[in-house]
Amino acid sequence: MIKKDKHLIIIGGVAAGMKAAAKARRESAAMRITVLTDEEHVSYAGCGMPYFVGDIIKDPQKLIIRRPEYFKGMHDIDVLTHHQVVRIDIRSRSVRVKHLVNGQDLTFHYDKLIIATGAQPVIPPLPGVSLGNIFTLRTVTDAFKIKSFMNAGEKVRNAVVVGGGLIGLEMAENLVVRGVGVTVVELFDHILPPLDKDMALLVQNYVKENGVEVITSDKVESFEGEGGNVTRVITGKQWLPADIVILSVGIKPNTKLAQDAGIKIGVTSAIEVNERMETNIPDVYAAGDCAESTHLITGKPAWVPLGSTAAKMGRVAAVNAAGGHDTLKGILGTLIVKVFEMNVGKVGLSEREAVKEGFTVESVIVPAADRAHYYPGGKEIITKLIADAATRKLLGAEIIGTGVVDKRIDTIATALTFGATVKQVSQLDLAYAPPYAMAMDAIIVAANVLDNKLQGKTAGILPQEVMEKYERGEDFVLLDVRTEAEYKGGHIRGCRHIPLDKLASRVHELDGSKEIITYCRAGLRAAHAYRILRNAGLKNVRYMDGSILAWPYGLEK
Amino acid sequence: MIKKDKHLIIIGGVAAGMKAAAKARRESAAMRITVLTDEEHVSYAGCGMPYFVGDIIKDPQKLIIRRPEYFKGMHDIDVLTHHQVVRIDIRSRSVRVKHLVNGQDLTFHYDKLIIATGAQPVIPPLPGVSLGNIFTLRTVTDAFKIKSFMNAGEKVRNAVVVGGGLIGLEMAENLVVRGVGVTVVELFDHILPPLDKDMALLVQNYVKENGVEVITSDKVESFEGEGGNVTRVITGKQWLPADIVILSVGIKPNTKLAQDAGIKIGVTSAIEVNERMETNIPDVYAAGDCAESTHLITGKPAWVPLGSTAAKMGRVAAVNAAGGHDTLKGILGTLIVKVFEMNVGKVGLSEREAVKEGFTVESVIVPAADRAHYYPGGKEIITKLIADAATRKLLGAEIIGTGVVDKRIDTIATALTFGATVKQVSQLDLAYAPPYAMAMDAIIVAANVLDNKLQGKTAGILPQEVMEKYERGEDFVLLDVRTEAEYKGGHIRGCRHIPLDKLASRVHELDGSKEIITYCRAGLRAAHAYRILRNAGLKNVRYMDGSILAWPYGLEK
Repeated sequence: MIKKDKHLIIIGGVAAGMKAAAKARRESAAMRITVLTDEEHVSYAGCGMPYFVGDIIKDPQKLIIRRPEYFKGMHDIDVLTHHQVVRIDIRSRSVRVKHLVNGQDLTFHYDKLIIATGAQPVIPPLPGVSLGNIFTLRTVTDAFKIKSFMNAGEKVRNAVVVGGGLIGLEMAENLVVRGVGVTVVELFDHILPPLDKDMALLVQNYVKENGVEVITSDKVESFEGEGGNVTRVITGKQWLPADIVILSVGIKPNTKLAQDAGIKIGVTSAIEVNERMETNIPDVYAAGDCAESTHLITGKPAWVPLGSTAAKMGRVAAVNAAGGHDTLKGILGTLIVKVFEMNVGKVGLSEREAVKEGFTVESVIVPAADRAHYYPGGKEIITKLIADAATRKLLGAEIIGTGVVDKRIDTIATALTFGATVKQVSQLDLAYAPPYAMAMDAIIVAANVLDNKLQGKTAGILPQEVMEKYERGEDFVLLDVRTEAEYKGGHIRGCRHIPLDKLASRVHELDGSKEIITYCRAGLRAAHAYRILRNAGLKNVRYMDGSILAWPYGLEK
Repeated sequence: MIKKDKHLIIIGGVAAGMKAAAKARRESAAMRITVLTDEEHVSYAGCGMPYFVGDIIKDPQKLIIRRPEYFKGMHDIDVLTHHQVVRIDIRSRSVRVKHLVNGQDLTFHYDKLIIATGAQPVIPPLPGVSLGNIFTLRTVTDAFKIKSFMNAGEKVRNAVVVGGGLIGLEMAENLVVRGVGVTVVELFDHILPPLDKDMALLVQNYVKENGVEVITSDKVESFEGEGGNVTRVITGKQWLPADIVILSVGIKPNTKLAQDAGIKIGVTSAIEVNERMETNIPDVYAAGDCAESTHLITGKPAWVPLGSTAAKMGRVAAVNAAGGHDTLKGILGTLIVKVFEMNVGKVGLSEREAVKEGFTVESVIVPAADRAHYYPGGKEIITKLIADAATRKLLGAEIIGTGVVDKRIDTIATALTFGATVKQVSQLDLAYAPPYAMAMDAIIVAANVLDNKLQGKTAGILPQEVMEKYERGEDFVLLDVRTEAEYKGGHIRGCRHIPLDKLASRVHELDGSKEIITYCRAGLRAAHAYRILRNAGLKNVRYMDGSILAWPYGLEK
């Protein structure tokens, strides 16, 4: 017989909650452990929802990782579903619970409490927002609702996805795959707001090429319907037909229970915790999407709700609640999302975020192949690296492309964790064989380019900076050094064209009093042209990082 | 006009040599740069050779990255092929050269010299080794020879690959793919000697399942032939028919030129260099496969010839030779190889190497999925992590499987570079979305298991340790806790079987005076069974890390 002593109560039965329950049991065979959730399901795969809607995951059972009976039978953990916690009473160390099925009011005493109440979608308070067929996607119940609507027989023609973030794009893809016409409406001036505009626009172009309409810098103002169901979406600029609307404008942490109980809420609006996941109230912990983290680059509180972080937080809270000691230092805001065949990743600070944090930023955009060029199946990726010019430390990265992105994001996440300099990243002993990487991996190449820039050895300019020069009406020469055929296939408006192999003999054609910016396809020939022009005595020369591959503003023929 | 001043001579035109030449030009427009090589080709893809033989790469031109004319035209670098350097004269700062085509003797003065002479295959001095159709695979010329023999029309039935290292396995695969019966003969007691035996045996089983005969702990003693061509290979234990033999017993650095000139050779038999790639002779650098590195974990000299390291060394040598300053701190011995559909990677120290270096080692083997279990296409990988019990720092990793391995190797390479503890690895903020990883990535799961072991929280035992107990004739209970069906499908000889869900009620059947070792399929249920038995009062219990998935010694039914 196992002696039951202390009672651990966990509020919430998804990622952090169930991870905490299982870990607490492994830490303590004796503890009584109870999980309370107002939902019907626990331990489900929140991140799999868009793929379930898109039929990539067909069996709904696959989304439910474990059932309450499993936790009881295998781990002696009581998982009480349909049990809504209505109040936490710090003084009496108890939680008041309403049984959502039989209406009963219950009180549970706790010795230790882990709050893992998660987050909920933001529902913008717009006219018509409660019409039928307007969905959010957060719980497994949401996913079932959307899928049963999609499968109900009536042809779903038009979808509007409100918000072009990760979930919005995953949903857009999974609806397009099912033959629905999809329009994404984004308030910001580009989709994927966590990314810098230059990188996000490349993704946006790709998403459009894959049949998704994208409207940016526009705001949904109301929804209109017939027979109780949505039929169109009214934005500041237009109206859009809609048989279905997905609201994915963001999520917010579920903190009401904590706040009402006097538990401190942090500056991010999530529950404030220390490295041990302790709140300001003794024996009360918070973990998962309801709790805030520390950003390892800025050292400031950050709220980046993700299943991966929730699992780590749940473990730490459990160890401490069970009487041990564990800490979680923080996060890097690492993101990855698959959009059609493109992989989009970000880690650490974007350039915009780094500037906002007061860093003097240097950055590069470098396209490269994801494996040896002669090995079949290689694809391109585009890496943006962001560094602190003062310390030459890396601050962040954004990587996109149909090639392998997640590997490079993980490598940089690890480098950022340890405060790596750009130089150190350029010399990592990464795994090399032709099926996996180039002899110098894409991030090593990018780090070399950035290190050169930090040392003032080169004079790259980002595509976005070139565009800003155009917008300011600056007088400069944009010089395309590609071949005639490449030039004719599409070039940047207003450029001059001199192929690289003719450049040395035609330098005299260029007006040396103006700034000259060279570009090619991926940046290599542009850098070479830069050196030819410099060696010919021209002083005011730069070359465009990433060149055409990183130019998101369209070409003309 | 560019003023030419100092003359940089580079001996060797493959990875390090050509990288150094191109980088030196970017560093200095004025320097005169000459590359001397006795080969016909430069800048070729040494690592692509096995895939060329296997017809995965069909076009031989793809293996030649750049031609001499390119370097002359684009970079003003003189690349002199068929120019064999026969002597380096330190005193007069010159190299004596024999032109291999016209027999001319030439002398070149240098101001700076980079030795990038590479490495060559070891040819064991065995009777018959010079028979026809016995090949090594190192240069592009070797690859052409093998391929033209393979394509010559006569059916190649049997191949013997001498040496089961990376090149040997790549060749075995590429010959099997072409319908040849292949036997690999390895002197060591398992293939892939850099790996620990437990992990290497799992690869070895897989290679055998894919149709390659593998003979270990056996030594080739001679070759016999007819009409000048090899027909069979005689080993210590048997003879093997052979229409073709691939010698892949290792490579050795080309150091004769350096040694004759009085340049210091290091303990690894490669040229000794400091972080700047400087040899003991002023203005003479060495880079690439002929030069040694520092191992970042042991701090000792190491020689791990790889294209990725060669490229980094070439850059550093070039920057310094051109008057700048750059350093390369060292390497981690990172390896990756694709063997059929299995990916095999290693970074840092193996357990065997770590023990030899004097570390008190703790290690685990943990199987896991490479992405969310509900996302299609997921595959298994098996991770072995090796740590220093004293500092709890990670020392190395070996990862194998049909799932994504390179990503995890790169992540751990980065962690090792910064001296990460196992705990720190377990808390990395790695990229998570269902198509890319589990919420807790495979290496995070493995690091958690290892961290628990380092804290003494669990009592895992490696499969190899269990086998050693058998071999010593120890009396213990090996307990299979899988389902009846799994047990019947194949189990370890001599085990008891009690399914996990019956274990609590059948504990009394077990002899508590003996050590009990539980196992399941992947280790999770074994750990659970361990806790059930411990809670039931049994003291002497352990569970097998990785269980059946990591058990390389065969099963019985």
